[in-house]
This record gives sequence, structure tokens and C-alpha cells, in this order.
Amino acid sequence: MNVLLVYAHPEPRSLNGSLKDFAIASLEAAGHHVQVSDLYAMQWKASLDANDSLDREPDARFNPSLDSKHAFANGRQSADIAQEQAKLRWADAVILQFPLWWFSMPAILKGWVERVYAYGFAYGVGEHSDSHWGDRYGEGSMAGKRAMLLVTTGGWESHYGARGINGPIDDVLFPIQHGVLYYPGFDVLPPFVVYRTSRMDDARFASVQDELGQRLDTLWTTPPIPFRQQNAGDYEIPALTLRPEIAPERSGFVAHLA
Amino acid sequence: MNVLLVYAHPEPRSLNGSLKDFAIASLEAAGHHVQVSDLYAMQWKASLDANDSLDREPDARFNPSLDSKHAFANGRQSADIAQEQAKLRWADAVILQFPLWWFSMPAILKGWVERVYAYGFAYGVGEHSDSHWGDRYGEGSMAGKRAMLLVTTGGWESHYGARGINGPIDDVLFPIQHGVLYYPGFDVLPPFVVYRTSRMDDARFASVQDELGQRLDTLWTTPPIPFRQQNAGDYEIPALTLRPEIAPERSGFVAHLA
Repeated sequence: MNVLLVYAHPEPRSLNGSLKDFAIASLEAAGHHVQVSDLYAMQWKASLDANDSLDREPDARFNPSLDSKHAFANGRQSADIAQEQAKLRWADAVILQFPLWWFSMPAILKGWVERVYAYGFAYGVGEHSDSHWGDRYGEGSMAGKRAMLLVTTGGWESHYGARGINGPIDDVLFPIQHGVLYYPGFDVLPPFVVYRTSRMDDARFASVQDELGQRLDTLWTTPPIPFRQQNAGDYEIPALTLRPEIAPERSGFVAHLA
Repeated sequence: MNVLLVYAHPEPRSLNGSLKDFAIASLEAAGHHVQVSDLYAMQWKASLDANDSLDREPDARFNPSLDSKHAFANGRQSADIAQEQAKLRWADAVILQFPLWWFSMPAILKGWVERVYAYGFAYGVGEHSDSHWGDRYGEGSMAGKRAMLLVTTGGWESHYGARGINGPIDDVLFPIQHGVLYYPGFDVLPPFVVYRTSRMDDARFASVQDELGQRLDTLWTTPPIPFRQQNAGDYEIPALTLRPEIAPERSGFVAHLA
């Protein structure tokens, strides 16, 4: 199978760098093909702007989504964007690896999402009607592919528990797992999270590697997070709220799990 | 009073650009002093990296937090970072204005947070003991200052309701409002959110302006979101989980509201 690892850490000689090297070696040893988008090494342009489209009228008003739509449809995207889209098409599975900075992904990775997720590619896909509100949340260009987050954080596991001060890790990651990955159609696997990274010794690193290796070995068989499909009957359209009879006692992120 | 508006949209001739201009005019008409960090106009460097510290050893291993700590403590931060920190010190209130892209802030603004929020300035502040786990979540360098999000989104209000498919807006914004703003000590006001931005005509824009004007007029009196202070007794330290007797029936983000 083909695996794309999108990696966002500025220092190769870091815990993240070691985990990346281990993941590549582990996947290749199992016979998979791996491509790595090492965003810092690539000096990835993080900020979405008018330069993401080739030969625009310089004085034309820039509309992020309409310009993206036009550039995607007409082959006028900047080359770095088109290359990353080709990697996504090639991949059977995508791993986003990053340190959790301020409770989200690093800016350089957020900018990868913003620029690579073009209108017509990752959003604005499919028809809008009374029963189908675009191919999104369970349908879309990434349908049939799997995705997983590989995240490190300095905080303790308890800080990200059900009543931990940072909020539950599944809720902290929901905007990424549901909003960035499930939205264009990925099946999203439970995240692999390494907590309290300042307390890493050789023994603990060996055990983290073992656990990560098991997750990589089961990348094709681990059941995905059971997010609800938008267009499969659970939601009113176009309000996109859960129908009253669906999990009537629930609200918030958890309500979107079947 | 002094207001810092941190603004992240690439096109001045946009809804966001118009709202920014209105906010500045409205605040200045009320006698306040306003500084604007227009991140796209400033060509703000979005990606945190080793170049954020002056005169590092070029081959030294880069550690994002330890390098930040050293640069902050020794006056060796790059000038753009120090300038933004000076604006934060000057401000009595801070407004972060941005379009919601993929359920979070644009990369350029995320990179402002990552680079300006230095170790010793926005985190790593205060003592750690059995009863005090750093000056954070209600204490810290920004204590006594107010902050508010001004957010636009193409999605409908119902999509961000209690049972809306994107998740409740308060939960989508929790990693920013609680994790980025309350963490270093800001009092965080309820957000000002403009939904369904593709359906904006003159009448609706006038009414949005009126509502925003009211929020700016009451910037100093609006009650902040009642997040729980970390070190005021509600949390076990160092587990940083809510004590069993505090809101025992609650978990998730909402449990951190008093």
C-alpha cells in the first residue's frame, strides 16, 4: 500500500524526527511504499494567498475559495500545491505527524491543509440538493483512504482526560480529525498520541516505538472512528443538524459519533 | 484604552477588510488607541523555526521551547517577535480577527501565536509546586487584559449549533479561547461570529456592523466567559483534573466553565 507521511517538526534530531524515521522504516519493512512531505525541510509556504494561483490579474480582488476553485479547475495552481495533491491521490493512507502546539497543528501544517485542500478537491465537491449537501463528511475525494494523526505533546495524559484542564484529547483533535480528515472523505483512525515528551528515556522510547509499530502494522485493519456520514440520513439538510430522533440526549462533538 | 487588533485576511477588499476598517474607526471614535497587526500586509513569517533566535550556533539542535526561553530571557528574539510582544504589553484589549479556515485560525495567525507566545512570556511563567502549576489558565502575563475573537465563516449558524455537524461554535473555538487566550491570562469575551458570509448584502452588512459596534462599545463591561482558574482550587495538581466534587456530572470542554 502507499503511505503519505506529512511531517511538521523543525528539528530532525528531535523525538518527532526519531518517530518519523522509525515509522518510515517500519512501513517500508512491511513492504509499503512511503512518501514523506517534510514540510520544514521543503520550506513549505505556510500562508495561503493570491500567489497560489498562476497568472492572476495582479489587481483583481482575491477571493480565497473562488480563486482556488478557478486555479484547481484550470490547472493554474502553483506547482507545490499540485504536487501535494498528487501525493494525496497516490496514497492509500495518510499520516499527519506533528507536535501539538497551542492545542492544534503547527502553522506550517495548517498552511499545508489550507493550500492543498483546494476548492473542487477537498471542498466544494459534489452536488447540493435537498438530500445531499456536497460530498463531505464521509464522502469526497479522499473516500476509501485512511488517515491517522501521530501527535506529541508536553502535557500529561491526565491533562487531556475527560475532566482534564486542556479538554479531552478526542475533543481537542476533533476539528482536525472530523473537520480536516473526515470532511473530504478519509476514514479516520484513532490518533497515536505521545504525552509528556519531556520525560522520555531509552526505555520509554522503546515502548513508544513498539506501540507505534503495532499501530502501523494494523493501519489497514484498525476500525476507524465511527463519525456519522452527512448524507446518509442522520442529518437534516440543509440545516445540517442531527435529526431529533438521532441520539436525542446528545449534543456537542460526541453526538457525531454513531 | 489601548486596543490591539491582530488581523489575518489576505484581501483588504473583503468582508473581513471592511469589518476591520469599521472596528478601527469605531474604537477610535470612542477615544481608544488602536494598533493593528495586519499579518498579511506585514508578510508575517508564519513558521516557527531556529531563525527566530538571533545568533544561534548554526549546528546546535533546535528545541522550540528551550530556544524560545533562552532568546526571550536574553533579548535574542528576532525583532518581529519582540515588536508583537511590545504591542501585547501595551494593549488593554486584544481582538483576533480571522476567517475560520478548516475549523481554526489561518496558518499565518497560528504562526503569530506560536512565535510571539514565547517561553517565559506566554508559557513557562511562574512557579510549579503542589498548589500552583505555573501562572496559566487565568493567570499569567496577560492577566487584567481582555481578548475577543472576531470570526467569519461560510457555514450557517445551524451548522455550528448544539447538534450541528461542525460542532458547537463554542467547542470549535475552545482550543483558541481557552487554550490560546485564557492560558496566558486574558479575560476572554464571548466571540463575535458572522455566519454564512456568502450571503451578505448591504442591509445585512449594516446590521452586522451595528452588532459589532455594540460589542466594541461594551468591550470593557461585557462579562468574560467564566473559565475556571487553574490554581484557585477547582483542579487537582499536578494531574490538572477537576476535583471530584466540582461539577461531578460534567466532562469535556463545558466542565471548565464555572
